[in-house]
Amino acid sequence: MEFREIVENNRSYRRFDQKRRLDKTELLELADLARKTPSAGNRQLLRYVISCSPEINSRIFETLGWAASLPDWPGPQEAERPSGYIVIVTEGDSWDWARVDLGIAAQTIFLGAAAQGLGGCMLGNVRKEQLREILELEDNLAIQLVIALGKPVEEVVLEKAGRGDSLTYYRTEDRVHHVPKRKLTDLVIRIYD
Amino acid sequence: MEFREIVENNRSYRRFDQKRRLDKTELLELADLARKTPSAGNRQLLRYVISCSPEINSRIFETLGWAASLPDWPGPQEAERPSGYIVIVTEGDSWDWARVDLGIAAQTIFLGAAAQGLGGCMLGNVRKEQLREILELEDNLAIQLVIALGKPVEEVVLEKAGRGDSLTYYRTEDRVHHVPKRKLTDLVIRIYD
Repeated sequence: MEFREIVENNRSYRRFDQKRRLDKTELLELADLARKTPSAGNRQLLRYVISCSPEINSRIFETLGWAASLPDWPGPQEAERPSGYIVIVTEGDSWDWARVDLGIAAQTIFLGAAAQGLGGCMLGNVRKEQLREILELEDNLAIQLVIALGKPVEEVVLEKAGRGDSLTYYRTEDRVHHVPKRKLTDLVIRIYD
Repeated sequence: MEFREIVENNRSYRRFDQKRRLDKTELLELADLARKTPSAGNRQLLRYVISCSPEINSRIFETLGWAASLPDWPGPQEAERPSGYIVIVTEGDSWDWARVDLGIAAQTIFLGAAAQGLGGCMLGNVRKEQLREILELEDNLAIQLVIALGKPVEEVVLEKAGRGDSLTYYRTEDRVHHVPKRKLTDLVIRIYD
């Protein structure tokens, strides 16, 4: 797959074929990709919790808020839930540049999954105290982001958003998920050539 | 190139073959990859300034601090400077999740460059007021990060860092750049399978 195709296939998916299990090796390979990414000041503050255990997965699932822009949808039903999770935590408190490292690592995991025909969703709406207890995290570790992973069964389509158009994603009756994306000409504000 | 190879080739490079020019199309394609990445709440707050103009490049260069851990090195000399820049700015003030979007977009640009045999460095140490004037940015735009790009001429090697080892990158006399990276077993703190 060309890199451009990986980026284009890498959408935020929220419904999965739960019968397609993930194994520890697949998740460790994704964490190893994240390990090899640039890190601000090379400080490497991110740590990873991985789960492909159905029991722990279902407990993690209970801590997650799905799709803020779809308030009538409580998240995926049983059989369409993620097969694995990578929870990214930081040692110590939040350094401003650790947030950038977080995006770098999460996107690399995401693209690595897309290159394998997998997909997922980055979830920031997490009941952190509940998740901290489930994962028995030490006090010096702060939960930053949960990456849910699985085999997507959802169609996600990018739509062109003009200036002033709504950026709220939506679903149509055919269960297709639509995501308005701004145009390149609206995002590139200066070109010097 | 396999995705894993792209990630492994994607190091932070600080010396380039300046004779290898970049053109507007190459930089716009990288910005278009960033456009297609996930964005927190789909808010899409990032904007891009691109330059492959030798004159503007040299003015941008003057605003950059290179390699905090190599205090004796003032940055690349003429002939080894970047051939292009993508400056990422945000509209409005800094939202905590925009920092994560910044990492997502910057890493996607970086990997897209690596897939083309290019490379670069993410620079956060920027004289922002000076750069703001050069780019004639409106007051509502905040400079977040400068991505320097070019054809790398530097060898960068990952070294294994044990617990307690220094994470400071260094150069040896052969001009090879060494980057200590923590081991996977130190980064993955829980495995549930």
